[in-house]
Amino acid sequence: MYSLEELQKIVHDEINLKSSDLALKKPEELYSPVVYSLAMGGKRLRPLLLLMGYNIFSEDIKNAIPAALAMEVFHNFTLLHDDIMDRSKMRRNKPAVHVKFSENSAILSGDAMVFLSYKYLMESKSDKLPDALHLMTETALEICAGQQYDMVFETRTDVTGDEYIEMIRLKTAVLLGCCLKTGALLAGAGTEIANQLYTLGCDLGIAFQLQDDFLDTFGDQKAFGKIIGGDIAANKKTYLLIKALELAKGRMKEDLLNWLNAGREEAAEKIKAVTEIYNKLDIESITKMKIDSYYENAYKLLKNMSLGEEQKQYLNTFIHNIRNRKY
Amino acid sequence: MYSLEELQKIVHDEINLKSSDLALKKPEELYSPVVYSLAMGGKRLRPLLLLMGYNIFSEDIKNAIPAALAMEVFHNFTLLHDDIMDRSKMRRNKPAVHVKFSENSAILSGDAMVFLSYKYLMESKSDKLPDALHLMTETALEICAGQQYDMVFETRTDVTGDEYIEMIRLKTAVLLGCCLKTGALLAGAGTEIANQLYTLGCDLGIAFQLQDDFLDTFGDQKAFGKIIGGDIAANKKTYLLIKALELAKGRMKEDLLNWLNAGREEAAEKIKAVTEIYNKLDIESITKMKIDSYYENAYKLLKNMSLGEEQKQYLNTFIHNIRNRKY
Repeated sequence: MYSLEELQKIVHDEINLKSSDLALKKPEELYSPVVYSLAMGGKRLRPLLLLMGYNIFSEDIKNAIPAALAMEVFHNFTLLHDDIMDRSKMRRNKPAVHVKFSENSAILSGDAMVFLSYKYLMESKSDKLPDALHLMTETALEICAGQQYDMVFETRTDVTGDEYIEMIRLKTAVLLGCCLKTGALLAGAGTEIANQLYTLGCDLGIAFQLQDDFLDTFGDQKAFGKIIGGDIAANKKTYLLIKALELAKGRMKEDLLNWLNAGREEAAEKIKAVTEIYNKLDIESITKMKIDSYYENAYKLLKNMSLGEEQKQYLNTFIHNIRNRKY
Repeated sequence: MYSLEELQKIVHDEINLKSSDLALKKPEELYSPVVYSLAMGGKRLRPLLLLMGYNIFSEDIKNAIPAALAMEVFHNFTLLHDDIMDRSKMRRNKPAVHVKFSENSAILSGDAMVFLSYKYLMESKSDKLPDALHLMTETALEICAGQQYDMVFETRTDVTGDEYIEMIRLKTAVLLGCCLKTGALLAGAGTEIANQLYTLGCDLGIAFQLQDDFLDTFGDQKAFGKIIGGDIAANKKTYLLIKALELAKGRMKEDLLNWLNAGREEAAEKIKAVTEIYNKLDIESITKMKIDSYYENAYKLLKNMSLGEEQKQYLNTFIHNIRNRKY
């Protein structure tokens, strides 16, 4: 099996290679936002998961590369469109595509990225390609639903923790499940084990997103690389805020709701005050427990899978790595 | 073979049926713009072309219905996104989706429509489904390129007639070719005849779009149903305007460019003046000849195809009908 570092290098090289091709394509105005978006970097977790899912069952990793690329391009399409919808001006410390180019560019180049991802996925040579195409399509519809719920939730103050988890499952987690399962399918894995890997990916995805929420408020400033409390300042409906709204009563709830109506100019004061409310409600432990429960689920699933010890150890290390990330 | 009216009824009924399903799907905020968009009507030319392409080779039309629906949903996705990009507030005499709902809705529900169209297309039972999926994906990328050129051309006054034709080929015509060819492929037609039908569809598409441009200025007000001269008032880069900019010299060219800078409040005067310039340059005949050349191409192609007389007559009638449309 390839090491995680080797797989990461394969992903990195392939994205660079394909970006050089795309940079030459016409019309330039359509493809340069695609190239810009792919050059932004990020964790590139999705193509890595795809290659891992494949490598568990086959060493012929070359055949999985177009599908891995498809997943990264697909993920970046969602970022282009989400950043318009969420009015997010920055992405990975750089101007978002709709800011750097234009809103029209982000819409249209985002659309093109959808079709590029289908095109790349279809380059995979496998009997299971139709299953992979179905899965990607169903996953994409779930991601749209997740983004819609996310937007609807922004207008509500009574979202429950369970509703929030379901939203992030759709918006974020199913794509991680899809990547692991697609890799497995393309390598010829059976339906049962492919489905187990899907569930594992979804659990990881939920844990991963909750961890994002957690680190934004309770992370270590230096390791995190962004300003701590950014979500609080932006009134972002995170798991932390939702649980706090669920648990706060009386005066505390009023205070919290008042802070949600405060302007951005009071950011520092607001971060401090809301964090204090979180501390009083023990939101840190509640969230940590929730995150742990999903990682534990993932470990349990993995333990019971019909996979060789080497494969299990491999996935285990991966889960361990992302569980211990500080950013 | 089914009559065109029968095929139209099949399309109409299927869209109604599927709309009832979609209306029940959650989240409602994601699917109601899809239902709204499908209920807007329009000519529904694309699903009709798909069924025709299929029916030429097979009577088992039922198997082609999901693919026909896919083409209509796909086409409507492009309308949702194009109307945002082009700032078009009305579509088929109703508020565009981004006006009726919101820009975010038009982006996200448009995205969902892409995935719905892949989903529907994949419901087709045929050995040639992979070819159909490839074709749809390549066509979609061409459509994105066409829309990009269209936007770029809006900022230029030196677009040539040939550049314009290439733009509408990408933006509009290839999808008509794709519909005819996909129908043929799914019914098991050979590659050669399927490709000929593709070319026929593209020729029809170019003729169709040029006719749109033509009717907007030279159509009969009563039959046309929209205000004559709307494109002139909106400075739309039509074939007419592009040829006029190409052919006008000296004072006439200055006048034309000045009218392009005039505000919307002078619409009636502007329509009159620009139409006069068109008349002086004989734009009506030039455009008519161009349209005719594409229809003649289509007839010639059809004549030489290895198809039975009934099939040829059928396509012939269809071409005749759309050639003689007044709106």
